[in-house]
Amino acid sequence: MIIMSKLTIYHIPVCPFCQRLEILLSLKGLRNDVNFQVIDITQPRPAWLLEKTRGTTALPVLETADGHIIKESLVIMEYLEARFPERPVAQRDPYRRAVESMLTRMEGEFCMYGYQYLMNQDSGKRNALKEGMLAHHARLNDFLLEHAPSGPFLFEAFGWAEAVYTPFFMRFWFLEYYEDFQLPDEAKYARVREWRDACIAHPAAQQVTKEEVIKLYYDYAKGAGNGALLPGRRRSSLALEPDWRTRPWPPKNKYEHSATDEELGL
Amino acid sequence: MIIMSKLTIYHIPVCPFCQRLEILLSLKGLRNDVNFQVIDITQPRPAWLLEKTRGTTALPVLETADGHIIKESLVIMEYLEARFPERPVAQRDPYRRAVESMLTRMEGEFCMYGYQYLMNQDSGKRNALKEGMLAHHARLNDFLLEHAPSGPFLFEAFGWAEAVYTPFFMRFWFLEYYEDFQLPDEAKYARVREWRDACIAHPAAQQVTKEEVIKLYYDYAKGAGNGALLPGRRRSSLALEPDWRTRPWPPKNKYEHSATDEELGL
Repeated sequence: MIIMSKLTIYHIPVCPFCQRLEILLSLKGLRNDVNFQVIDITQPRPAWLLEKTRGTTALPVLETADGHIIKESLVIMEYLEARFPERPVAQRDPYRRAVESMLTRMEGEFCMYGYQYLMNQDSGKRNALKEGMLAHHARLNDFLLEHAPSGPFLFEAFGWAEAVYTPFFMRFWFLEYYEDFQLPDEAKYARVREWRDACIAHPAAQQVTKEEVIKLYYDYAKGAGNGALLPGRRRSSLALEPDWRTRPWPPKNKYEHSATDEELGL
Repeated sequence: MIIMSKLTIYHIPVCPFCQRLEILLSLKGLRNDVNFQVIDITQPRPAWLLEKTRGTTALPVLETADGHIIKESLVIMEYLEARFPERPVAQRDPYRRAVESMLTRMEGEFCMYGYQYLMNQDSGKRNALKEGMLAHHARLNDFLLEHAPSGPFLFEAFGWAEAVYTPFFMRFWFLEYYEDFQLPDEAKYARVREWRDACIAHPAAQQVTKEEVIKLYYDYAKGAGNGALLPGRRRSSLALEPDWRTRPWPPKNKYEHSATDEELGL
């Protein structure tokens, strides 16, 4: 067993960027060898954490055994891959690695678009946002058809690109619930659908459930990100307590109704 | 000598993302072993190139000996580094590599901001843009002070982060010329200034000159990017001909005057 008890990751359990690290470590068989320390996103960051990060509030952050701080999920993934190379997740062949890096480069816009779509409060923009989301999926579909037509994954097994994207595919359950977004059953989305479904089903990626995502992201659906409080509310839906399992399912009609703390079981 | 005569990079000579690859290859002593093929940004992309890139117009693009296409300058850099590891440019130690990756992650906003500042046409926004640019430099200064207080480079020698940033430091000569932007002689910019100056002076990074940048980017300064034509003009300042050396220096007063082709020596 590798001694890495002093490696610490400060994380928010439902954060997709944090889940990437859990997936990567699971694939390497090292999930339980890293100290994951939960940070409550609904509270101001503690002073000791801000001191470590020199003011950065974004998570995850990794702290090495000798107190070095590494920020940015993709950078932390690379660090873990380089430091624990025994069960490689990234491709080793330079061209294959370039292919998964090209796909990884597309994650930023995909993520940002999905969150922007969820946070939209203008029902007049729903159709345009839906079309844009479909276009993002069509681009991923095209990429996969070019580089991995036979599927389901980009290469032989669930790997680097899957660790990067699966947390978004799971978060985007919130679009199904709050926006009735569905990938149409059309050929131009068939390959990305196959990929998405295989990603979501993988045993290394079961850190969150649909129910958890939908309950915790209610405030995002109402336009309040990162634990911000909505008018008239005392608690954020992203609060760690009460446990999401004890809360009722939130109302779906985000454009017509604003739920109270009580309705949300907070 | 490595046989790589069939490695081709399609590039625009004054493009900062393309220059990164030239710098990296120069550091590896391989600049002349790659076939650099110039693409004229002021003309529509040729059909044969669009076929190779499946419609992507952004450059640079690398074509491997067996016809594979790799896009995105940072991905191409990683590919070249992995394929030709003999004279490493990236850090090998995982933590040091993470440090240069964190700095590299800050390049996107820095670049975008500099171009947005150059392309601004509203003189009322100049002060705010200048302040924002200073804030970007202050962030880089802070990062360098944390990780490399003694300088001039991030590590012992001009390396990966320098290959990523130097093309922007050189392009941002256009801000000195068209916006009178200068880094103030203050302590909070001293470390980034030292870094910038050492980057610009490095022998591996002499692919462009200040004169070339300022002449070719005139149309950007007037708000027209990527070879687009301004009203009343027949040629873009980014045209390959006439050679920039034969052209006069463009007028600096971008907010008061629009130069003609004749004034620009086009």
